[in-house]
Amino acid sequence: MEDHVSYFNIQGVFEARPLVYRHLKPTPLLSHPLLDAYLGTCTLVKHENHNPTGSFKIRGGLNYMARLSPEQRQAGVVTATRGNHGQSVALAARINGVKAVIVVPHGNNPEKNAAMKAYGAELIEHGRDYDEARELVEEMQDERGMLYVHSANAPHLVHGVGTYTLEILQDLPKPDYIFVPLGGGSGTASVLTVVRAIAPKTKVVGVQAEQAPAIYQSWKKGEMVTTDSADTIADGLATRVPFEMTFEVIRRHVDDIVTISEEEIKEAIRQYLRTTHNLAEGAAAAPLAAAYKLRSKLRHKSVVLIHSGANIDSALLREILAEAA
Amino acid sequence: MEDHVSYFNIQGVFEARPLVYRHLKPTPLLSHPLLDAYLGTCTLVKHENHNPTGSFKIRGGLNYMARLSPEQRQAGVVTATRGNHGQSVALAARINGVKAVIVVPHGNNPEKNAAMKAYGAELIEHGRDYDEARELVEEMQDERGMLYVHSANAPHLVHGVGTYTLEILQDLPKPDYIFVPLGGGSGTASVLTVVRAIAPKTKVVGVQAEQAPAIYQSWKKGEMVTTDSADTIADGLATRVPFEMTFEVIRRHVDDIVTISEEEIKEAIRQYLRTTHNLAEGAAAAPLAAAYKLRSKLRHKSVVLIHSGANIDSALLREILAEAA
Repeated sequence: MEDHVSYFNIQGVFEARPLVYRHLKPTPLLSHPLLDAYLGTCTLVKHENHNPTGSFKIRGGLNYMARLSPEQRQAGVVTATRGNHGQSVALAARINGVKAVIVVPHGNNPEKNAAMKAYGAELIEHGRDYDEARELVEEMQDERGMLYVHSANAPHLVHGVGTYTLEILQDLPKPDYIFVPLGGGSGTASVLTVVRAIAPKTKVVGVQAEQAPAIYQSWKKGEMVTTDSADTIADGLATRVPFEMTFEVIRRHVDDIVTISEEEIKEAIRQYLRTTHNLAEGAAAAPLAAAYKLRSKLRHKSVVLIHSGANIDSALLREILAEAA
Repeated sequence: MEDHVSYFNIQGVFEARPLVYRHLKPTPLLSHPLLDAYLGTCTLVKHENHNPTGSFKIRGGLNYMARLSPEQRQAGVVTATRGNHGQSVALAARINGVKAVIVVPHGNNPEKNAAMKAYGAELIEHGRDYDEARELVEEMQDERGMLYVHSANAPHLVHGVGTYTLEILQDLPKPDYIFVPLGGGSGTASVLTVVRAIAPKTKVVGVQAEQAPAIYQSWKKGEMVTTDSADTIADGLATRVPFEMTFEVIRRHVDDIVTISEEEIKEAIRQYLRTTHNLAEGAAAAPLAAAYKLRSKLRHKSVVLIHSGANIDSALLREILAEAA
């Protein structure tokens, strides 16, 4: 295992700590006995769903926005997103007095749009899909000099997110396994950056959706692969194109990548409700689904599941619960 | 306003702090912009649902169990309960190496029974209802010398629970209002004990279910009133008989008690999901329902809602979501 990680490093994560903890508290790492019984092993859940905005992303946004120059604050930031990244950018920008514009495609989920607007961002609907929305972002970047906040190719974001892994290792210094959702890769890259520096024997398993396997395929092949679709209910995992910075770290350092089906994601959402009474969005449920799949390998191991966020729509939750009735 | 509170005092709450924080982290007090929009005011939610066992009760259990004598630890504790109190007793007893027996009536919810057993308690099914289950508790107390842990008439429990109000006042020193679920009264009495000592101008509003109004009626009348039924989906509010210690504090110090309908509780559960993506059990949703009812009075006020716990069964959640479809 190489020690060198080009874009991200443990120093960056330590430097993020004061900027992150100015605005949030460490999240709990909890044991849930019914979950242990379900998985047949000792499991601890890192409750990133307990953060402001309901997901881990806010840690990255806070570290990013606090570092802008006065000129950058003045010009503001812009991003294209459909979910948690947008809420993180909106809230972190507001806290730091930065103007934020978020571009979403037409027909984006109205519940998500409402959340981003409620955090004070200007919301613009543009284009038929994410890629068309991105075009407007580039225009605004060029014409208005706004800073484009990428959701993964941004060391300050990844370093901010890395603070949750430092918290884990403070409570449990050497877990055998950490299971983390793998979409754009900011979460997984941040876990790897911290774990490789501090707990090098801990195995890190990234979890992708079978229906959105771009990073899994890229990792298998050793080069970046793009998929035609990313059709999963776990929108946090719906990435068609790997991102350069996070993929480099994942390619070098991840121990395993597991893919799971839509049915397995839905069942994990239901099991999180039953065994812990925490709401999990699809991406957040993915590590539980993967651990359940690998449960025979995990006996007598200490397992940490990253519960990345709770931002699931009421309509989808209703559907998932109704299917099990 | 009298300064003297007979059974509970702020010193007891401060003394509980080290015993509570040995095993849990302070919970966050979060702003949720969509909730602010729904209520039309600045609201902060105290997320007691983020605790181990998913409810505020664990704070009381931890303070209680840590104070037992070696003889009491040896003999063990016993209680009758159907919900969060049982999980708190079970986990706090396990942490402190104390044997715990929990008596539930036949036909008690199997999901709740499983949770209490999973925390390591011995579970005994006895009798047709809570009162018959209680008879066995008294027998075990007499014959086996076990300590009976009452869910509200116990200063160490109430003092432990009071630590959440100290956390609130650390983040927000003088809220205009605190809305707290009111069932057995351990939560409300603990809020009053801390607020009257430290933030005397803050108004404390207890929230009861219309269908379980024993404390409300007792407060109106100035003496303890028992109701024939307590038929509410909010099992944390389903108290037919006020408890002496907590009622004394409530009678003297509470600013208002509001009652809400079953429909209002269900709608508040749905609104908590939509606006914050946190799961709320019926009692936890009650303060939101009450604040919504009083929203015209709350404009330009700072309002804290106690989100007391997340332990709602999947089947009930499914039903509540389906009703709104």
